[in-house]
Amino acid sequence: MSKPLLQVALDHLDIPSALKATRALAGEVDVLEIGTILCYAEGARAVGIIRALYPEMTIVADLKAADAGSTVAEIVFSQGCDWMTVICCAPYATMEAALKVARKYGGDIQIELYGEWTFEQAAKWRQLGLTQAIYHRGRDAGLAGQQWGEEDIGKIRRLVDMGFEVSVTGGLYAKDLGIFKKIPVKCFIAGRGLYGAEDPARAARDFKDAINLNW
Amino acid sequence: MSKPLLQVALDHLDIPSALKATRALAGEVDVLEIGTILCYAEGARAVGIIRALYPEMTIVADLKAADAGSTVAEIVFSQGCDWMTVICCAPYATMEAALKVARKYGGDIQIELYGEWTFEQAAKWRQLGLTQAIYHRGRDAGLAGQQWGEEDIGKIRRLVDMGFEVSVTGGLYAKDLGIFKKIPVKCFIAGRGLYGAEDPARAARDFKDAINLNW
Repeated sequence: MSKPLLQVALDHLDIPSALKATRALAGEVDVLEIGTILCYAEGARAVGIIRALYPEMTIVADLKAADAGSTVAEIVFSQGCDWMTVICCAPYATMEAALKVARKYGGDIQIELYGEWTFEQAAKWRQLGLTQAIYHRGRDAGLAGQQWGEEDIGKIRRLVDMGFEVSVTGGLYAKDLGIFKKIPVKCFIAGRGLYGAEDPARAARDFKDAINLNW
Repeated sequence: MSKPLLQVALDHLDIPSALKATRALAGEVDVLEIGTILCYAEGARAVGIIRALYPEMTIVADLKAADAGSTVAEIVFSQGCDWMTVICCAPYATMEAALKVARKYGGDIQIELYGEWTFEQAAKWRQLGLTQAIYHRGRDAGLAGQQWGEEDIGKIRRLVDMGFEVSVTGGLYAKDLGIFKKIPVKCFIAGRGLYGAEDPARAARDFKDAINLNW
């Protein structure tokens, strides 16, 4: 089993703030995510700027695209991202169109499992050729007090058994990682748990230590 | 019954292209929408620029937000939009958080009915205080050949009966408007059907004529 990667979600309101975070964290993490908030605030130039600065890193555009899969994929893949997210309630046609563009660029599409979704849909996503999913405990759900638990673990395992590479996100801290032990998680994704820490690089190393301890 | 409004969805890849469209259409339509594509490509500055140019018009940011309702609403309402969209599969907590920010600015939230949704969810949205929905035949579904029909009309009527103000979009042309006759549609939304026409202002007047004929 490969070790899970560590991904920082740059959910900043502007590019300069995000770059302060990447300067502190780029040497410590595996994947840089242009978070939904940053995408909406600054647009696709955020992808292009971070690609220019970090040519060797894996970069994700967390658009949570719901429509116009081909066009929005072209917008962010042409700026240099490796992966782009689509929201799980997007029509299959949107996912297929996005995947086609992603592959043209040698990239990939990740389905953001957010809000309502079913394993019947998941089976269809696999049929369409999609292989990456992000299991997401939403920010607003997190703020409402929902915790990580056995139900989450069971769903993640079932997705893995279906052939998905599953990344995990939503209010994650290094201390939480033990509960995912023995599941082949693709990436652990944290935002403010990394760049919002007093010492971001140390917070990243705590995640890496927890990964090395459990995988 | 009020006459339906006409909304242009600016689904351009950059702000200059969108401004060519607004120069041709601002005098002919009621609502300017910063489309999802333009939001993702240029970010929230697209809202601010169009607000500066058209201080009296109703402006929509079609983010299709799925998470972080409060933050993303703050991003676009602070730039001057009147309405912002959330995707129908967003958690209720996201919708509530976005609505709270919208109301602070005297604005409103529209639920984009895109992909999978149920009338049970719609009842919950009304309980949360949401009153605007956008009935959407998706672009990718449209490209796949799906047509407007009785099923669409029935669903729109049921939403109206539940107390929603319903806007309608997705591959709409002036000739299609007759099939919505006698439904109190809030806005008809067209993108390339307006700005992609040989004479955009005339295409808008064709929509207005169809509205005046049927309502």
